[in-house]
Amino acid sequence: MARIVMKFGGTSVADLDRIRNVAARVKREVDAGNQVAVVVSAMSGVTNQLVKWCQDLSPLHDAREYDTVVATGEQVTTGLTAIALQTIGVDARSWQGWQVPIVTDDAHGKARVEGIDGAVLIERMEAGQVPVITGFQGIETHRHRITTLGRGGSDLSAVAVAAAVKADRCDIYTDVDGIYTTDPRIVPRARKLERISFEEMLELASVGAKVLQTRSVELAMKLGVRVQVVSSFEDKPGSLVVDEDEIVEQPVVSGIAYSRDDAKVTLRRVPDRPGVAANVFGALAKASVNVDMIVQNIGADGTTDMTFTVGKAELVRAKDVLEKARAEVGFEALLADPEVAKISVVGIGMRSHAGVANTMFRALAEKGINIQVISTSEIKVSVLVAADYTELAVRALHTAYGLDAPA
Amino acid sequence: MARIVMKFGGTSVADLDRIRNVAARVKREVDAGNQVAVVVSAMSGVTNQLVKWCQDLSPLHDAREYDTVVATGEQVTTGLTAIALQTIGVDARSWQGWQVPIVTDDAHGKARVEGIDGAVLIERMEAGQVPVITGFQGIETHRHRITTLGRGGSDLSAVAVAAAVKADRCDIYTDVDGIYTTDPRIVPRARKLERISFEEMLELASVGAKVLQTRSVELAMKLGVRVQVVSSFEDKPGSLVVDEDEIVEQPVVSGIAYSRDDAKVTLRRVPDRPGVAANVFGALAKASVNVDMIVQNIGADGTTDMTFTVGKAELVRAKDVLEKARAEVGFEALLADPEVAKISVVGIGMRSHAGVANTMFRALAEKGINIQVISTSEIKVSVLVAADYTELAVRALHTAYGLDAPA
Repeated sequence: MARIVMKFGGTSVADLDRIRNVAARVKREVDAGNQVAVVVSAMSGVTNQLVKWCQDLSPLHDAREYDTVVATGEQVTTGLTAIALQTIGVDARSWQGWQVPIVTDDAHGKARVEGIDGAVLIERMEAGQVPVITGFQGIETHRHRITTLGRGGSDLSAVAVAAAVKADRCDIYTDVDGIYTTDPRIVPRARKLERISFEEMLELASVGAKVLQTRSVELAMKLGVRVQVVSSFEDKPGSLVVDEDEIVEQPVVSGIAYSRDDAKVTLRRVPDRPGVAANVFGALAKASVNVDMIVQNIGADGTTDMTFTVGKAELVRAKDVLEKARAEVGFEALLADPEVAKISVVGIGMRSHAGVANTMFRALAEKGINIQVISTSEIKVSVLVAADYTELAVRALHTAYGLDAPA
Repeated sequence: MARIVMKFGGTSVADLDRIRNVAARVKREVDAGNQVAVVVSAMSGVTNQLVKWCQDLSPLHDAREYDTVVATGEQVTTGLTAIALQTIGVDARSWQGWQVPIVTDDAHGKARVEGIDGAVLIERMEAGQVPVITGFQGIETHRHRITTLGRGGSDLSAVAVAAAVKADRCDIYTDVDGIYTTDPRIVPRARKLERISFEEMLELASVGAKVLQTRSVELAMKLGVRVQVVSSFEDKPGSLVVDEDEIVEQPVVSGIAYSRDDAKVTLRRVPDRPGVAANVFGALAKASVNVDMIVQNIGADGTTDMTFTVGKAELVRAKDVLEKARAEVGFEALLADPEVAKISVVGIGMRSHAGVANTMFRALAEKGINIQVISTSEIKVSVLVAADYTELAVRALHTAYGLDAPA
């Protein structure tokens, strides 16, 4: 017997048939003798409609009223799911964020979970009832108003509930069937990972493998919640995200990620003296432009070239900020290139293995792919290449690190 | 300065433009120096969709989950209305049933309001804020679950809130502009009533003038809340429903109502002995069939004919119950006629005036309309006629009682 939290996203509860399918899956776990709590999102499309109404009334709407409106999507799903469960003989009851309660701070629209008292839920689960809990929403206890956790917040709710009820596992049901060594649309021979560490998952999520919301992985790591990513639509084992201690054979490289969300900015002939970098990145930070990779070459004739990446959506703002700071910074030219891709190899085994980066550089060179920028972290090596080369680079690296499934 | 509760039904908040229109109307009252609380229904069509989902999952769905699902319609409207008000500079905040709280019993799907503490709402109104409160929903305090008051329950919510905040008036905004002496679609010269008593309104509502939910009129009468029916779409005075003491000139007849919702049942040659009526109506009551008008003629040769009306929707059940009780009751034949209409004249002035019924009978006779059944109460005379004569009868009576507006 295990205690499990099962979380179903919007596409998994998109209509009544899918909600019935969810109920059947829950019943299977209950029939197997497990204690189950369910966390659900809004039916897909519903939240977008509610958000649009708020936007159309006022782009600067009150975030407290926004939360009141958009939180209804999850409320509907909890009630319908409870009915679907009862209909097939499973004792169930819906729980709204304020009923549990899932207590958050008052940062409406992007609230942080402050605490969940799991006692009542555990009591119900031990008595054989399935609590069906709203994802995405909570309550701030000062004024007793509904809050929401931001887009994708239902994963976060599920992890927080799993910790509160001391669940053995938090199963995230979604429209993919697990976490792969890379995007299977690019590499058909990508393999599903049986296990992956929180740290690796965080690196993969943040560089573009959009399976789990980053904050929920961080929370799972912090609270020690074992997370399984599993398909809502197919019946096969998923991928388990766990503490690295639980992974016996730690691969050097677990996966290859890519992202086309960044743009490259180069400042030509920046004066090569102390304080210049601070001027550049200070100005960007003040404008809330996030900078990712940074490279600065050793200069000649008293100047240097400085290259870095910003989110594509922030490129216009970044250029604007830098042009305004031109006199102060003193660069000769600003070159912007949005046609770039970031390719990353990720693996906790890197910590104890040399030569990982070198394998990467060689594999890319063999395909004639020019590396524009390089950055590394403890468990990741990322390079920036021309966007046209994205798929070629991902495939080359997937093969180079021996990740291809047997043909 | 007055304290007003303004209630807007589903068609008045059907889309964002109409919600903006609602906000503009509220702002006008606020700008005039009034303290305002708003009660809103779900956007029209929304509740039907939510109900259908519950029905489709299970006709015998858990009423507690049904309430959780359908109550979201009003929640969305409160948030959107609050945003629309804020956008035009009116301080506003949404209130859910559980936040006020609007405390009800636990009869889910048709809960009764047990109490509303108006203190916080009054405080906000006095500080210049407009509370936007969900109609239709409440909370039962034993298990803290959401309840709903049944279809049309938002009128009830508005009246209860008006009593709790000691409002001078409860304005019910709807798609008609007031209460008329009869249905203007039948009698173009029907007049809008400036004032009508609670008792008359109850008789008119229950016989087919579907402007105000009957329970809300009963509650307004009990709590002494002055109700105004007014148009959401036009800018003219409505009709005031008040205690009869507030009506100086009490008309003998205030209005003519009609209903085609009943069917006539006649039992031929029922034994004319004590206990037979008890057998007939006891059996019907046990099957929850409501009986309205009842006539029994003085019998000849030891038998009598017994005629009564039941709701058309209950006719099949009524016939079934009576056929099963045939041996016990001992009638010769059961005749059912759904093609009937009930025409009623209503007026508190009847109490002190003779000859009201006679005017009715003469007016109908002059048009060649046969009266099938007659029943009377203190302020009402109703007759059953063939359904084909409905409009003719209503027009004849409207003229006979001098209700026609000047041509």
